[in-house]
Amino acid sequence: MVALRALKQRLTEIDDLSRAASVLRWDQTTYMPPAGAGARARQIATLSGLAHERFIDAETGRLLDAAARETASLPFESDEASLVRVTRHRWDRDVRLPTALVAETEEHAAVSYQAWTVARPADDFESVRPHLEKTLELSRRTAECYPGYDHIADPLIDFYDHGMKAASVRELFHGLRRRIEPLVEAIASRPQADASCLKRRAPLETQLAFGLEVIRTFGFDFDRGRQDLTRHPFMTRFAHGDVRITTRWREDDLTDSLFSTLHECGHALYEMGIDPRLDGTPLATGASAGIHESQSRLWENLVGRSRGFWEHFYPRLQAAMPAQLGGVQLDPFHRAINRVERSLIRTDADEVTYNLHVMLRFDLELDLLEGRVAVRDLPRVWRDRFEQSIGLPVPSDRDGVLQDVHWYHGLIGGVFQGYTLGSILSAQFFATAVKAHPGIPDEIRRGAFGTLHGWLRENVYRHGSKFTPDELVRRVTGSDLSVDPYMAYLEGKYRPLYGLG
Amino acid sequence: MVALRALKQRLTEIDDLSRAASVLRWDQTTYMPPAGAGARARQIATLSGLAHERFIDAETGRLLDAAARETASLPFESDEASLVRVTRHRWDRDVRLPTALVAETEEHAAVSYQAWTVARPADDFESVRPHLEKTLELSRRTAECYPGYDHIADPLIDFYDHGMKAASVRELFHGLRRRIEPLVEAIASRPQADASCLKRRAPLETQLAFGLEVIRTFGFDFDRGRQDLTRHPFMTRFAHGDVRITTRWREDDLTDSLFSTLHECGHALYEMGIDPRLDGTPLATGASAGIHESQSRLWENLVGRSRGFWEHFYPRLQAAMPAQLGGVQLDPFHRAINRVERSLIRTDADEVTYNLHVMLRFDLELDLLEGRVAVRDLPRVWRDRFEQSIGLPVPSDRDGVLQDVHWYHGLIGGVFQGYTLGSILSAQFFATAVKAHPGIPDEIRRGAFGTLHGWLRENVYRHGSKFTPDELVRRVTGSDLSVDPYMAYLEGKYRPLYGLG
Repeated sequence: MVALRALKQRLTEIDDLSRAASVLRWDQTTYMPPAGAGARARQIATLSGLAHERFIDAETGRLLDAAARETASLPFESDEASLVRVTRHRWDRDVRLPTALVAETEEHAAVSYQAWTVARPADDFESVRPHLEKTLELSRRTAECYPGYDHIADPLIDFYDHGMKAASVRELFHGLRRRIEPLVEAIASRPQADASCLKRRAPLETQLAFGLEVIRTFGFDFDRGRQDLTRHPFMTRFAHGDVRITTRWREDDLTDSLFSTLHECGHALYEMGIDPRLDGTPLATGASAGIHESQSRLWENLVGRSRGFWEHFYPRLQAAMPAQLGGVQLDPFHRAINRVERSLIRTDADEVTYNLHVMLRFDLELDLLEGRVAVRDLPRVWRDRFEQSIGLPVPSDRDGVLQDVHWYHGLIGGVFQGYTLGSILSAQFFATAVKAHPGIPDEIRRGAFGTLHGWLRENVYRHGSKFTPDELVRRVTGSDLSVDPYMAYLEGKYRPLYGLG
Repeated sequence: MVALRALKQRLTEIDDLSRAASVLRWDQTTYMPPAGAGARARQIATLSGLAHERFIDAETGRLLDAAARETASLPFESDEASLVRVTRHRWDRDVRLPTALVAETEEHAAVSYQAWTVARPADDFESVRPHLEKTLELSRRTAECYPGYDHIADPLIDFYDHGMKAASVRELFHGLRRRIEPLVEAIASRPQADASCLKRRAPLETQLAFGLEVIRTFGFDFDRGRQDLTRHPFMTRFAHGDVRITTRWREDDLTDSLFSTLHECGHALYEMGIDPRLDGTPLATGASAGIHESQSRLWENLVGRSRGFWEHFYPRLQAAMPAQLGGVQLDPFHRAINRVERSLIRTDADEVTYNLHVMLRFDLELDLLEGRVAVRDLPRVWRDRFEQSIGLPVPSDRDGVLQDVHWYHGLIGGVFQGYTLGSILSAQFFATAVKAHPGIPDEIRRGAFGTLHGWLRENVYRHGSKFTPDELVRRVTGSDLSVDPYMAYLEGKYRPLYGLG
């Protein structure tokens, strides 16, 4: 397999460049002094541009052709056949993107991110508006490299969630909204849970130490990873042996940093669980944004906000925060962390209203790309639609259109649908795991996660991106993506919590 | 100046790759989880190899030829003429190094460093011996790319301290040793200073905060830099806007982290002071290892261990560490931090014996390269020579041959002479500055460093590597490198301190 070996060597060099760019991005958001931003943007652009240029080179195409012949008789799911198949798909896709556009987009993303770090605390949309306008222009130019789309967002959605389109996401979201809104209404008719116990002050060290204790039991491998603080939490992979998460924290919120940590740990467990033999190839990444998000939401919510989880961990949290939680019983605490309410910030939202936040953003992405909404009108449109769909006035751009980093650190389009796809899939995967291993909920009650983690590693994680999202969902669950398990989970959890028979 | 513009663009892209490799190295020594080391070594090798490959490409040579014609009439010290001249020199030098050797050396350096981080605490030379043997082989192969040398170390010395050779360094060191040894002897005949007040315990935060307060007054710009903790302190530059230092610390040593901080700050002030117009080019670095070290030793010792400096800062240090230093007067403290004694660790050594440590290493580098000493015998030879030249038995390899990171994180040869060249030059530069501005010592006594910093920036820092070390020393001081100012400084400081009339 001479061509395959040469292909892998070439891909590993490209991977080195891409992962190095990721280290530079990680550093920009964690430790970089502010004046480093200008050169950093250029350095990231250079690395990303070189990686793209080498990837789309005709030589990669020739090696792919030759390697396809060498691996033609191998099973579909073998490492070798998968590498050639998945890389071919990516090559056919990426070869249409000019290197200059990729480099310009990467440089702009880093510059725009830095502006956002100042603009959000200052509640100053105007200062990032020109950046966002350029982001929209770059997003359109990127989409236009793929003529023949039904909707201009389709190529961008396909980058993140291959197989989805604006129309299919819209249809899915429409159906989901019709089932979620009645639940939100029903809950709103009931007495609200008291969440004041969460709004007590606890030192950063205490909060972080507890989160790290939990994710260690989840299976986060600290020899191969670490956690740092950032404005907007994320997970990033530099190699099989180096998968990092970040978290945020608030002194006056006991569980904000915790749930952010559990969320990012879910992403990290996925990346840490990818077969090490795939390292350095395009297969060593999650299958899609939606599949990735299914893991963050599974560990954050289906595990981390479950009553069983807290049966084990609540005494430990009380011991870590005796002054704050010593007098609060398990049930009121559990209701507090699952309080359903209309709220301003997506990443703080409960599981029920969360998807309404995502749908708002998804619709705005489409409208921005279509030119129905101009960037200069975005803060006003955000406020209008937010009040209309979530039912809450937006007091500031800081907690409105500036709240999410994504549009300020990448492209507009394709970014947000993955969050709801992930919510849906988290329940579908979890239900399948419990069906295979009915003892999982009992294990969780004992603070043991080995069976669940092992099942996910075996069925989802180790494959990396060998399979398309559709292929993987069918392989794992035996059926296509479905909102039924998700709605069953929400109804089964929140109806009893709110005494809705 | 079409060619010059194209050359600069090309050099900036190469600079992006090299600086990105530096970010990856910084991360490896500060935050990287241990299992990340394998992929990290490969990533650094890929970036360094690509940077080298693009630099030595014939196209760079063609652009240099054309740019030389375009800039032929410009003054010697203009940015443009300097860029072409200095880059030409580097190109002629680097074009003889095969890219594969550069990449292999970089990958090996990262692997070897990681092994050293385990071997030194474990006092386990054997575990790094194979790495060190390979380092020696790579060092020889590198030197052999430059046939015609007088000594095999000459090409390596020239990388770091252009213009120096094994023979010239030996002669210089021989002369210096003859003048230092009598001073060491004379001091040894006098009652020793009591340094026990420094061996009290102080928390990390207190130690670091005081160091940061001092370097802020030196002029370290925290918008363009930061400090982190590492096993072996260093300074690194990613851009004009991003210059970082690291420090170490010991709970039971009040000033260990402080002097390491002042030392690295000296390096950082140099890099921060380079004209921003040179950023992204080969000119945006110090002129040589020796010139660089002159700045770290100037700020650490000529400023930071002077009595005038402590007249201002000692009350502040006492306020930060009242339990430890409240009862210790300025003079005993000043004598304690300038105590001259035979000691095990180079980076802890006082100013007088320090150069004996450097000379030992320099001689060993030559002997290793010549094959007079084998790596497997190095621990024994180290012990023998150390006892012979410093007069102290070496209790362990941890505090013997394993103490310095350098041989375990790069090449053998050319590394150490810069430390003593820097010591010599620190006094020569400082004397010149004080001659130009006789008020500098008084300013230091008031905790003001603007005149000194400004003079260094104007005369040394802003030029980057426009001038060779020899050219720069002559420009700045009006004469060649000389040990006289250094000996005058040592005698003038230590004779009174030890009552040696």
